[in-house]
Amino acid sequence: MQRYFIPENQWQLPNDRLIIKNDDYHHIVNVMRMQIDDEFICCDPSEQSYLVKIVEIVDSDKTIHGEIVKPLDEQNELPVNVTIAYGLPKGDKLDLVVQKGTELGMRELIPLKMDRSVVKWDEKKADKKIQRLQKIAKEAGEQSHRQTVPSIGSLQNLRSLLQDRTFDQIMVASEYEAKSLENKDNSFAHTIEHFNEGDDVLVIVGPEGGISEAELQLCQEEDVTPIRLGPRILRSETAPLYILSALSFYLEEWR
Amino acid sequence: MQRYFIPENQWQLPNDRLIIKNDDYHHIVNVMRMQIDDEFICCDPSEQSYLVKIVEIVDSDKTIHGEIVKPLDEQNELPVNVTIAYGLPKGDKLDLVVQKGTELGMRELIPLKMDRSVVKWDEKKADKKIQRLQKIAKEAGEQSHRQTVPSIGSLQNLRSLLQDRTFDQIMVASEYEAKSLENKDNSFAHTIEHFNEGDDVLVIVGPEGGISEAELQLCQEEDVTPIRLGPRILRSETAPLYILSALSFYLEEWR
Repeated sequence: MQRYFIPENQWQLPNDRLIIKNDDYHHIVNVMRMQIDDEFICCDPSEQSYLVKIVEIVDSDKTIHGEIVKPLDEQNELPVNVTIAYGLPKGDKLDLVVQKGTELGMRELIPLKMDRSVVKWDEKKADKKIQRLQKIAKEAGEQSHRQTVPSIGSLQNLRSLLQDRTFDQIMVASEYEAKSLENKDNSFAHTIEHFNEGDDVLVIVGPEGGISEAELQLCQEEDVTPIRLGPRILRSETAPLYILSALSFYLEEWR
Repeated sequence: MQRYFIPENQWQLPNDRLIIKNDDYHHIVNVMRMQIDDEFICCDPSEQSYLVKIVEIVDSDKTIHGEIVKPLDEQNELPVNVTIAYGLPKGDKLDLVVQKGTELGMRELIPLKMDRSVVKWDEKKADKKIQRLQKIAKEAGEQSHRQTVPSIGSLQNLRSLLQDRTFDQIMVASEYEAKSLENKDNSFAHTIEHFNEGDDVLVIVGPEGGISEAELQLCQEEDVTPIRLGPRILRSETAPLYILSALSFYLEEWR
């Protein structure tokens, strides 16, 4: 069933009503060709989802009036809030990570200016890129039955991220860990065991060239846990998908 | 360090020697611009890897004579042999699954003609596609430090696959399982607990449109285990990556 994420100010919850407009109006009316009494799912910003039916379509101001049929008992969100901070990669890898990360339960993506990022974003480009990524997240969120759309943060560097924000757990995907045969007592499994429901988890992933010495040093100073993602060397864009899949398996299928 | 997969007939193990030719010759001489005494890693078909140095470059017949410096003690292969059978998808999703699947430890990919596959391969197209996928697997295998290159099987249908081959465990990624809230006692975690080292594991993943009723029935008849990959709905190409990541996490990082 189709799913739409409706902003706060379009809900009139006391009356079980909501207004749908903009892109969602276009999609419902022109793409899906829905009519009065047709039903779909709407999620509110508190991540509650509802079965909604159309009561009126007002073409003149391009709005749909919807009525809540019933609240839905969905639990599709990962039990921890995962933020992926990803060093700006080349090509369309960021698109891939946003799309697949959304399917796999990511809460937020922060593009990082990192020492070995070849790609640079100027300010104008950054705004456009972030809008585009936000759109990919919205579409993937609808398709994968998320109850919320992951947010795309603004471009920053590792130091400011670690200084400005607080997380319950911070991990960095490290190629050194993957290569080390000695480190049998590795820390991804160990770290994950100590997660509590609702924890804010930050995962740092470097660009193609990896994480610089200075950045690794900063991670050490900030007590970031280096984690190994199996013994093979993953491309940068594969690392977030491995981590989210493993978290889903462990927290949603195993425990 | 660069890594090459060298066919059986190019090894002269009693003398600690090997011959390198074709694409690998080109890569070493023209791309890497290596010279006498330069070193790299070569893997033999038994998945043993060696540190090798160049002893002679013969430009006239485009071969390199290599000498084994020492065998390497690598363990980069998943402890179970995972075959992904994937219903022919649209676009370049098969490329993505082969590349990422190789990084994540997949042993074999079998393209499946499935009821809801929109894409068709004629015989001539199939050969070319498989060659292309085999090349993607080789390159990804080199980059991710695999000790063997995953093989790409020929196009077949689900019935013939299940009749012709024997596996220790067979699973099917099922959207019905993802949607079912009742099925708390799901079977991916349960199945994975019973894996033994060296097991041959088949994972069936449908194309975009999913698995048909007839195919699901066939899976049931053949005692294939339906598995849930978290509560969200994954795109078809994301499912194999989730499964391989979860297997790596559980078998290589957790146990």
